[in-house]
Amino acid sequence: MNQMVDINRSKIEREETAQARWSRFKPITTGDEYLESLRGRQITCYLFGESVANPVDHPIVRPSMNALKATYELATEDPELATAWSPLIDAQVNRFLHIVTSPNDLVMKNKMQRRMGQITGTCFQRCAGLDTISVLHSITYDIDAKHGTAYHTRYLEWLKNAQRNNIIVGAGMTDPKGDRSKRPHEQADPDMFMHVTRRTKEGLYVRGAKAHMTGGLNSHWICVMPTMNLGEKDKEFAVIGVVPADAAGMTFIYGRQSCDTRALEKGSIDQGNAKFGGQETLVVFDDVFIPWEHVFMDGEYEFAQELVTRFTAYHRASYVCKTGLGDVMVGAAAAIAEYNGADGASHIKDKLVEMTHLNETIFSSGIASSHESKKLASGIFMNDAMLANVCKHNVTRFPYEISRLAQDLAGGLMVTLPSQSDFEHDVAGPMLAKYFKGKEEIPLESRVRMLRLIENMTLGRNAVGYLTESMHGAGSPQAQRIQILRGMDVERKKNYAKKLADIPIAVVPK
Amino acid sequence: MNQMVDINRSKIEREETAQARWSRFKPITTGDEYLESLRGRQITCYLFGESVANPVDHPIVRPSMNALKATYELATEDPELATAWSPLIDAQVNRFLHIVTSPNDLVMKNKMQRRMGQITGTCFQRCAGLDTISVLHSITYDIDAKHGTAYHTRYLEWLKNAQRNNIIVGAGMTDPKGDRSKRPHEQADPDMFMHVTRRTKEGLYVRGAKAHMTGGLNSHWICVMPTMNLGEKDKEFAVIGVVPADAAGMTFIYGRQSCDTRALEKGSIDQGNAKFGGQETLVVFDDVFIPWEHVFMDGEYEFAQELVTRFTAYHRASYVCKTGLGDVMVGAAAAIAEYNGADGASHIKDKLVEMTHLNETIFSSGIASSHESKKLASGIFMNDAMLANVCKHNVTRFPYEISRLAQDLAGGLMVTLPSQSDFEHDVAGPMLAKYFKGKEEIPLESRVRMLRLIENMTLGRNAVGYLTESMHGAGSPQAQRIQILRGMDVERKKNYAKKLADIPIAVVPK
Amino acid sequence: MNQMVDINRSKIEREETAQARWSRFKPITTGDEYLESLRGRQITCYLFGESVANPVDHPIVRPSMNALKATYELATEDPELATAWSPLIDAQVNRFLHIVTSPNDLVMKNKMQRRMGQITGTCFQRCAGLDTISVLHSITYDIDAKHGTAYHTRYLEWLKNAQRNNIIVGAGMTDPKGDRSKRPHEQADPDMFMHVTRRTKEGLYVRGAKAHMTGGLNSHWICVMPTMNLGEKDKEFAVIGVVPADAAGMTFIYGRQSCDTRALEKGSIDQGNAKFGGQETLVVFDDVFIPWEHVFMDGEYEFAQELVTRFTAYHRASYVCKTGLGDVMVGAAAAIAEYNGADGASHIKDKLVEMTHLNETIFSSGIASSHESKKLASGIFMNDAMLANVCKHNVTRFPYEISRLAQDLAGGLMVTLPSQSDFEHDVAGPMLAKYFKGKEEIPLESRVRMLRLIENMTLGRNAVGYLTESMHGAGSPQAQRIQILRGMDVERKKNYAKKLADIPIAVVPK
Amino acid sequence: MNQMVDINRSKIEREETAQARWSRFKPITTGDEYLESLRGRQITCYLFGESVANPVDHPIVRPSMNALKATYELATEDPELATAWSPLIDAQVNRFLHIVTSPNDLVMKNKMQRRMGQITGTCFQRCAGLDTISVLHSITYDIDAKHGTAYHTRYLEWLKNAQRNNIIVGAGMTDPKGDRSKRPHEQADPDMFMHVTRRTKEGLYVRGAKAHMTGGLNSHWICVMPTMNLGEKDKEFAVIGVVPADAAGMTFIYGRQSCDTRALEKGSIDQGNAKFGGQETLVVFDDVFIPWEHVFMDGEYEFAQELVTRFTAYHRASYVCKTGLGDVMVGAAAAIAEYNGADGASHIKDKLVEMTHLNETIFSSGIASSHESKKLASGIFMNDAMLANVCKHNVTRFPYEISRLAQDLAGGLMVTLPSQSDFEHDVAGPMLAKYFKGKEEIPLESRVRMLRLIENMTLGRNAVGYLTESMHGAGSPQAQRIQILRGMDVERKKNYAKKLADIPIAVVPK
Repeated sequence: MNQMVDINRSKIEREETAQARWSRFKPITTGDEYLESLRGRQITCYLFGESVANPVDHPIVRPSMNALKATYELATEDPELATAWSPLIDAQVNRFLHIVTSPNDLVMKNKMQRRMGQITGTCFQRCAGLDTISVLHSITYDIDAKHGTAYHTRYLEWLKNAQRNNIIVGAGMTDPKGDRSKRPHEQADPDMFMHVTRRTKEGLYVRGAKAHMTGGLNSHWICVMPTMNLGEKDKEFAVIGVVPADAAGMTFIYGRQSCDTRALEKGSIDQGNAKFGGQETLVVFDDVFIPWEHVFMDGEYEFAQELVTRFTAYHRASYVCKTGLGDVMVGAAAAIAEYNGADGASHIKDKLVEMTHLNETIFSSGIASSHESKKLASGIFMNDAMLANVCKHNVTRFPYEISRLAQDLAGGLMVTLPSQSDFEHDVAGPMLAKYFKGKEEIPLESRVRMLRLIENMTLGRNAVGYLTESMHGAGSPQAQRIQILRGMDVERKKNYAKKLADIPIAVVPK
Repeated sequence: MNQMVDINRSKIEREETAQARWSRFKPITTGDEYLESLRGRQITCYLFGESVANPVDHPIVRPSMNALKATYELATEDPELATAWSPLIDAQVNRFLHIVTSPNDLVMKNKMQRRMGQITGTCFQRCAGLDTISVLHSITYDIDAKHGTAYHTRYLEWLKNAQRNNIIVGAGMTDPKGDRSKRPHEQADPDMFMHVTRRTKEGLYVRGAKAHMTGGLNSHWICVMPTMNLGEKDKEFAVIGVVPADAAGMTFIYGRQSCDTRALEKGSIDQGNAKFGGQETLVVFDDVFIPWEHVFMDGEYEFAQELVTRFTAYHRASYVCKTGLGDVMVGAAAAIAEYNGADGASHIKDKLVEMTHLNETIFSSGIASSHESKKLASGIFMNDAMLANVCKHNVTRFPYEISRLAQDLAGGLMVTLPSQSDFEHDVAGPMLAKYFKGKEEIPLESRVRMLRLIENMTLGRNAVGYLTESMHGAGSPQAQRIQILRGMDVERKKNYAKKLADIPIAVVPK
Repeated sequence: MNQMVDINRSKIEREETAQARWSRFKPITTGDEYLESLRGRQITCYLFGESVANPVDHPIVRPSMNALKATYELATEDPELATAWSPLIDAQVNRFLHIVTSPNDLVMKNKMQRRMGQITGTCFQRCAGLDTISVLHSITYDIDAKHGTAYHTRYLEWLKNAQRNNIIVGAGMTDPKGDRSKRPHEQADPDMFMHVTRRTKEGLYVRGAKAHMTGGLNSHWICVMPTMNLGEKDKEFAVIGVVPADAAGMTFIYGRQSCDTRALEKGSIDQGNAKFGGQETLVVFDDVFIPWEHVFMDGEYEFAQELVTRFTAYHRASYVCKTGLGDVMVGAAAAIAEYNGADGASHIKDKLVEMTHLNETIFSSGIASSHESKKLASGIFMNDAMLANVCKHNVTRFPYEISRLAQDLAGGLMVTLPSQSDFEHDVAGPMLAKYFKGKEEIPLESRVRMLRLIENMTLGRNAVGYLTESMHGAGSPQAQRIQILRGMDVERKKNYAKKLADIPIAVVPK
Repeated sequence: MNQMVDINRSKIEREETAQARWSRFKPITTGDEYLESLRGRQITCYLFGESVANPVDHPIVRPSMNALKATYELATEDPELATAWSPLIDAQVNRFLHIVTSPNDLVMKNKMQRRMGQITGTCFQRCAGLDTISVLHSITYDIDAKHGTAYHTRYLEWLKNAQRNNIIVGAGMTDPKGDRSKRPHEQADPDMFMHVTRRTKEGLYVRGAKAHMTGGLNSHWICVMPTMNLGEKDKEFAVIGVVPADAAGMTFIYGRQSCDTRALEKGSIDQGNAKFGGQETLVVFDDVFIPWEHVFMDGEYEFAQELVTRFTAYHRASYVCKTGLGDVMVGAAAAIAEYNGADGASHIKDKLVEMTHLNETIFSSGIASSHESKKLASGIFMNDAMLANVCKHNVTRFPYEISRLAQDLAGGLMVTLPSQSDFEHDVAGPMLAKYFKGKEEIPLESRVRMLRLIENMTLGRNAVGYLTESMHGAGSPQAQRIQILRGMDVERKKNYAKKLADIPIAVVPK
């Protein structure tokens, strides 16, 4: 692996100052400016075994950038929903960069997330960063309170710049973990967990990798932070810091998705949702420098557990975004039923009701979790952890059932349709036009497009976001069950039962 | 039926004034005063084919009164939760008589309901009345606005007295309905829907019956109101009014419940929950007089639909009370697993997690519905109807699964246990003591009591409240599905899908 | 406990010969003869704290006897279904006493069980005995083959008498088990597992208890056998034998059921199913004598595990009987929907379809298990264990959902109906007749009766048989999951996957 | 569309005799011979907008042929399972061409189908043809019996040749249907349903199309038959006949599948299951000739309904094949859990048990349906229609849940893995090797391959076969519900309920 270092070293001077790093940015106000901001960066990225010089115009990458672009556009189109006033810089900021200072801020976050899901039909990749910002606020505050450090001020300074420049921040949390039976410091290869390799007067260097990083390549800044509780011997792994995505030493390896290469085909129909997609990357940090101004934890290992707990509380409720995708599924299923001439059947209506019921049930848990939020010491609000876990746990189930019902309504044609090229072929095309013609008033292309959208969301590229990410993002189902077990306070509930059964509360087995 | 009239006519002078009716009350502050207030009323009530002179001391009736009594006690024990300041009378009032003037009032209502469920393990019968009070506030206001009537003022006057005297109001909504294919005015027997039979200078007379009235006999006042939308020809059925439960012409017939007669047996163990129970009655109104001061609708049929819609929105979210019973189920299941020595098994913990997850999912939809409430013209808040339906719809499913899991953890002994008398028998008792002995440190009686509680809530008396009422109260499952269908705005969702599939929005079949 | 012995000792001479025991029987051919055969026995039985001298005419006990009586009647009414030709005695015998010598015999058993469920709507209590007979055939054969004992011949002799006299045999399997963390020989009180206390020239004595014994009191003979695998030190617990239910030293303590005392009330309506019910008893064996001719295992502990495995394979498939109860549920739900005038609604039909689908899914697993049976060394067939576990496991789920759907169709009236006495009361009766009148052509009594039947099967007496026994009979859900885990042959399945993924089969972690 | 005709007309002489058609075949005994038999045919096929001259060597097509090839290989490897003795030609034949003459034949069919699913992990495309053969046996017999026609003899002659040559027959059933509210003869374009366009001395011509034809291109012969019940005016649509796949006038248009083009990429890993796949085509019949010897129905419209009913009974039970795929899913999930080091966790084992339980439940309904088969007039057996519908209906649900659980066990890496090319890249490869390394003893490639297999079956190419085809093949869920509704005999079940509730059977509303 030693040669890895050399590849990137020359790109940018390594020990950049915080100021130098910010100097490369200018405030982004439109979606187009966002795209523009991603051009010309010295980023090392691999995709299909090739180095991608210009990801912005890569047909597989672009849809994932479009999804983030839409977060800028929503701020313009619906500022009440997608912006908020930031006292930090005394200005309206994109809500994805806003510090939540009330239960209502959290509820508005949920509503914006649902709206973004409706607009993009995929993972729009900006929530983990948003939730990271929230967590850092309270964690840096708490560390400072205990250790007399100055992380919170550093963090606020960085955040002001982030808000002013309206940047995207990606969350680098999941380490590769190596041998799961071992603690970080016990690993044969210490790089299995991100750790500090060197400290200089100017800052520190980190080494390791962050896996499954949502929208990694599309971010301007990346925040690295511990992925689980740490012990005293894991001190070198207890590091939080932010770096620009084009810092020296970073490599992005692009994760592939079901049907990803349809974006390389001629024509847009078979993609289903040609405009929007998600993105997951492996990001390798090969001695990446972080100036002290951008270091928010360095060795305070005992806060790692709480960091993760708070992050999952925020982030599991963020999965209400999937109700936006669920709205698209309901709409697509209703539309295809209509195109098929089946929308009057009672069983069709009933299935749409069931899909809606499940979708709104998810939404409920998110909203309820936000409503029940409590103020933390730093002044920020955190949503209710039990209900956030309940929300996410429903997300690991209901989208699969909604997807199954959508496939039911779509009919088998969804998976037997020929390609767009066949529809456009001189000989095959007219045959298809003749035999796949449905209701007089519905253009065949509309029917095909709707079927391809349902395929996209239940089997194709955005099924990754709607299904598998719903399962594993922010923790797999068992992770939620463990949290529910911890939080369910069964002793209190036993006492309710004992009281009604007229059993002395004291009856507790040893 | 003509002789029915005579039975009651002489009891109390029929055309009582509003003032005379209130004069029989005095402010209730404690649970005991509540019980006392139910004594000595001239109530006609039938139970097991006998007229019950003193329901308060009837062993089958008392547990249902105890549940209501607990609503008084909670107000004393936890005033923040169970009382609120009423601007109407400038005093703290029981929250069950409080007008909801903010989303938080609705959330607090939900939390009080859950708490009451934890305390009683049954239906505590005061929610329908509470939701009725809320609905009347806005409906009377709206009728007045249209018709220039004075119902709202009358209603407020009555409510002030209700708050001052801290009374229980029962909701008389469900009419027998007769032939379901016919409208009220088309019925062969007009009494199938409550209707006005006569108007005098002092007031009006109503005739009909209200079925499944929760806690009817335990109420001080009963509000009658239409059960469904009405047309112009149904004008005589469009009546809202309040009457004391002991008004002349009223008859209560008590509904029986699974295992009800265990309350008549010697010993309390086999009842499972000897203290608390629910109550449903058929209440027959045989020309019952209502003075004008207590009439809140008389002929404004076009408001019946909206009345029902608002009532169901409030009341379907009130079913979060079942999460309190769910807490008891979780606690009982955990306790019996512990008594059985099985609480360490991973599948046991997993089932407790599942029960909790389902229970909290219900809670979420209630809280979310309350959070999303909107202000009505009268100044009162109404919770979100879609989420209220979602809440109730989950209540028609999850308690059954929670109950199934509780039976799983209980083990078969729950349904093969001999009676308390056998446990106390000279010969059989020692045999049972020997062979049913479990863990050394757990008294056999505790184990039996816990099993009987689970039986009580899954098969016995309070299974009525936890299961069947969860299914049908505030509308059967299909009623919620119809509301979800109406509210799901499928056209908007189709447009989300069309946009992503790049189909012109205009593509809509004729 | 010492005085227990004396109570029974004098009743019947203790060391009866096998012949003497059989001499008390004469062949039973009709249901009435069955009832008659239960009279006049010197049985010690406790129910509601009283010794029951004549259980046959006890209103709570009789319905459970009626269910067994129906097994005799079916043999007359439908001999093809309910009898089989026995080569042992060269005559037709009741199929409940028949040795299964082909897959078809097992399938016919299943169909008879379903039919009995349809006829009785409850647990008819004769299956555990039937499955015991089957297991003993092969187990005694296998023990003899290994140890040169003569159990199989003894067993066949006893069985011939059983077939000739057409008796009921009850299965005594479940021991109280005491401290679950200890083996039988480790228990502080050895009686926690049935064991041999003494051996004489004539036979042996057993002591202990058998819990949850289905139809114990209604049986003529009881077979005691081990409840789990045994080790060498548990040798004294490795005993199988048959005794008449009125043998000296036996005590029956009756288990109570939800709503059991409705059978003591005036009138039959509120019982729902007044004719049939189930029965579970605790049977205490206080040094009960078994002559050697009736001992089928004595110390061969290593066969205990296999005995249990085979018994559960047979018995878990016997739970197809619940599809007969499921048929009743479907019929009752369909009937009440019709009485309510709702049978035309599409959601009603859909729910009936779902109930049927679930019910037939259970039936499938039973039939498939029987079809896939294999011949054992003794010449008898045993059904497929995996599919039998699958069958039973579905039985722990689907009846609960079928029951929930039946309650949905029933409507809330099911749990708010007044008692039969109120319907018959001079004043209340006419009111109820007026207000609960539904469709013109349906007598109110029919509607009430149908509702009470659904109550009976979902909350009342036969809910014990339809729900809780479905959960725990023949092993709780986790017991099936353990068997499925053992039998699922995951290594073979991994190899299928490896082959398709083109992974060398040898890739197996250490 | 007129020019369509000319394209094919010259290829093969149109009015071929039956003999000429068979003369092109020679007996196939091995899988390789099967592939060889598909070469050099004059077939018109479109795929991705291009005419495919040699489908056999097309990388997207070949996996689907491999699946059929495996049916030949299984016959050699396991003749007891995959062959049967045919009295027609007095020889062993492939079971896919065998006439079922006993319940056991049907059970063996099911077991062969499960085995094929285990071997291929996809739809092996030979079942619809097999079930067609079975249906034609009885339907031609029944038509002859009524009309004195000679279809049955013709059919038997054709079948003998089919058996001798061991050919694949495809089932052409599903017509495009056009406007669903209209009968065939009412359609604006009569080609929306296959129909006779001309009759000559030698035979007849058909015109129309068959959609979603499974394995159409991989078949040697195709049987066209009506897709639904027909009336007298639909007489010209009542046609059954068999034609070789390369008959003049036929065009195949290939349906695309999720991730299909991965087969075109370098490397086999990302395909997940590189060897096997399914195939669906649209087959257009542009005046295709059928000699009289190969016509098995011509105008006997009244048998169309029964044809469809019998076909669906056979074919819905054929969906037990999915339990073979389910076995692969269980194995893949177990393997990846092991590779992830998580196979010891109790929740992992529990999920594998659940997957197995659901899978075996499906299997049960298939086996039970076969066991319960009844003999038809022609001497052939038909499986139980109710249980076949139950089987298929479970197939529309359980594979989705099994798939969800497999994704749970797989972990998120399944959808974030980079491409094979990245793993093989000089720079990216070593990084991936370093950071994705798991357990020491498991090669990374094995882990990646297993994840790609799970992706293949839950999102990718074979998810089409495992999920969407499970939903819609042999009729969508609602089709089964309609059949269950028809067959559930609710009146009989109502009578069971009435008898138990002691209601006169005569109480039936008008």
